[in-house]
Amino acid sequence: MVYLDNAATSWPKPESVYQTMDQFLRRCGGNPGRGGHSLALAAAEKVEETRLLIARLINAPEKERVVFTSNCTEALNLGLKGLLKPGDHVITDCIGHNSLVRPLKKLENQGVRVTRILPCFEGFLSPEEMKKAIIPETRLIVVTHASNVTGLIQPIDKYGAIAKKHGLIFMVDAAQTAGMYPIDVQANNIDLLASSGHKGLFGPPGTGVLYLSERVDLEPLREGGTGIYSELEDQPQTLPYKYESGTLNTVGIAGLGAGIKFLFQEGREKIQSKVHFLREHLNKGLAQIPGVILYCQSEGSLKKGAVVSFNLKGWEPAEVGVVLDQTFEIKVRTGLHCAPVAHKTLGTYPQGTIRISPGYFNTLEEVNFTLEAVSKIAGAKAF
Amino acid sequence: MVYLDNAATSWPKPESVYQTMDQFLRRCGGNPGRGGHSLALAAAEKVEETRLLIARLINAPEKERVVFTSNCTEALNLGLKGLLKPGDHVITDCIGHNSLVRPLKKLENQGVRVTRILPCFEGFLSPEEMKKAIIPETRLIVVTHASNVTGLIQPIDKYGAIAKKHGLIFMVDAAQTAGMYPIDVQANNIDLLASSGHKGLFGPPGTGVLYLSERVDLEPLREGGTGIYSELEDQPQTLPYKYESGTLNTVGIAGLGAGIKFLFQEGREKIQSKVHFLREHLNKGLAQIPGVILYCQSEGSLKKGAVVSFNLKGWEPAEVGVVLDQTFEIKVRTGLHCAPVAHKTLGTYPQGTIRISPGYFNTLEEVNFTLEAVSKIAGAKAF
Repeated sequence: MVYLDNAATSWPKPESVYQTMDQFLRRCGGNPGRGGHSLALAAAEKVEETRLLIARLINAPEKERVVFTSNCTEALNLGLKGLLKPGDHVITDCIGHNSLVRPLKKLENQGVRVTRILPCFEGFLSPEEMKKAIIPETRLIVVTHASNVTGLIQPIDKYGAIAKKHGLIFMVDAAQTAGMYPIDVQANNIDLLASSGHKGLFGPPGTGVLYLSERVDLEPLREGGTGIYSELEDQPQTLPYKYESGTLNTVGIAGLGAGIKFLFQEGREKIQSKVHFLREHLNKGLAQIPGVILYCQSEGSLKKGAVVSFNLKGWEPAEVGVVLDQTFEIKVRTGLHCAPVAHKTLGTYPQGTIRISPGYFNTLEEVNFTLEAVSKIAGAKAF
Repeated sequence: MVYLDNAATSWPKPESVYQTMDQFLRRCGGNPGRGGHSLALAAAEKVEETRLLIARLINAPEKERVVFTSNCTEALNLGLKGLLKPGDHVITDCIGHNSLVRPLKKLENQGVRVTRILPCFEGFLSPEEMKKAIIPETRLIVVTHASNVTGLIQPIDKYGAIAKKHGLIFMVDAAQTAGMYPIDVQANNIDLLASSGHKGLFGPPGTGVLYLSERVDLEPLREGGTGIYSELEDQPQTLPYKYESGTLNTVGIAGLGAGIKFLFQEGREKIQSKVHFLREHLNKGLAQIPGVILYCQSEGSLKKGAVVSFNLKGWEPAEVGVVLDQTFEIKVRTGLHCAPVAHKTLGTYPQGTIRISPGYFNTLEEVNFTLEAVSKIAGAKAF
């Protein structure tokens, strides 16, 4: 079996992630902040350790500015809805995942104005276009760091500089990049960074994070028990508790911590380098198969995430996916990948693409086997 | 080590919960709805299995009406904020957890009117008082099934009947009761049932559920990718996906499924009976210790959850907790238990109480050891 759907969720996880989660639930079953006894404190300690690891990874000035969410979608919703009010203006891209598109659409229905910038021919958002879109009501620039359809990485440092210069809040959806590509929230002037924990950070599903700079103060999306200031009927204002009401996914957060430790141990550059190599090999191999149409490939570029999107002439993407799965036991994703807007921008709407996303645990043999499989499928139909 | 803090989170979990989670993450790492391949489908199957088990447990008419949340707090926030609009009137109790109190307080600040009914001398909400509180604007009756401070179980069948008669929505916070006490959403006319997964359902932290009857249509609290209807920029309206945006805590949900299977295998009545026996033994034993003040104990009653709250004359609750933890390795919770309103009602604000909450895996020996420990602590200070 060959798993090449790491852009949906990375798999397998490092052995230490499995073991940490199992041992955590068996040994530190307490509820952090919900008891002063040693088991609750052990759980709290693990949660704070993971928080610190994330802060280190993204260069957050304080770990308390890293808030745990149940997934990247919740982080994006919290950032957007916690910040924006009717009348505010937002500048965004046209390559976003539905986790960005749909809450923005809802806010638009409530009176927030949204300007969506089309990417230029190379697939990047033009900083010039971005500057032109700024109006007095502009409050936020929010971009997708890397498209989950094409993998193209946007130059967030440039957008961050624009936001800073114009006194705007800058938000980044790093679901496809956190862990794999360097992100420095201070150097890049990022005020809100949303990420899932179960992709490049090697954590389990059910984990996400939102980083908040000291320039933002969000309205929480949920209130409840925080384990501190129990006496208040109003939500406590202390970070990170203000945004973490209810029992956290402590076992998942423990696993996420193990995932980030693995990332630090192996080295981000080594991981990026291997995945980049596999992606390039895949790209080149696919380009040689008759009938393959590749999207947004910039060969050799480090500016591309670990995602290759393509189509095969004469085949529906879903058909190719089924044959890869059923005949070759190769797991890839086909269709719209929850990003219809990106596909409209790319011209692949509504059928979508076949997306292959290698991860750190994939091998060259697996990629070669996949290229052979695609080659056989391409040869099976006349076109 | 004696763990007696099961009202915060049940621990340990059944062996099958640990094993299911570990095996799930190792073998079914796919992302449900985010791929048509077998690994994603295996994950989806496990999620739907757990959904069905919960539907069976609470007698939901369709499993699609069971929505997974990250905790009970999120379920309560979704139910309350998804339903209520400024001008609406709500009737509630004065024994709620902050997960109910704080979102209601926020809604109150936004123009929702809230009537809080004081419990009668036996600790129950009077159905007569509830009827009297109904006004034309009343939209919702929301009650805590069992207090996490006193364990007292409220007669939800009576409140449900009132809600039905007056055409009101009826919501129950079952965090302390789901799994341990019978809940039939249809027989009890419950429209919204919120619960955590990590207490009486034996699941891991990071899991919660909200059941919605066909009488309610909530505004989602977050929009995003649902894995279905990817082509829509607006949130899909199909249940349960409408409320489940973003990658679910699949590994936690798999564990929750194993927990509920354990519950079905052992039998809810057997579990309730054992925990009831331990609680009664604890109650009786504590009542005989000089200086112990017990709260809301109704000896022999099945109408009480697995929680005993008490204080010791001459001691702060937190002091007793520290001695129990550090000297005897007994894990209990002290203070306000995230429920200041309940303590104000009880007259134990702001110091709170010492709360002992036995679970199914506790033994009579552990309870006796705890009684001896409390007795020694009581004897250590003159009062």
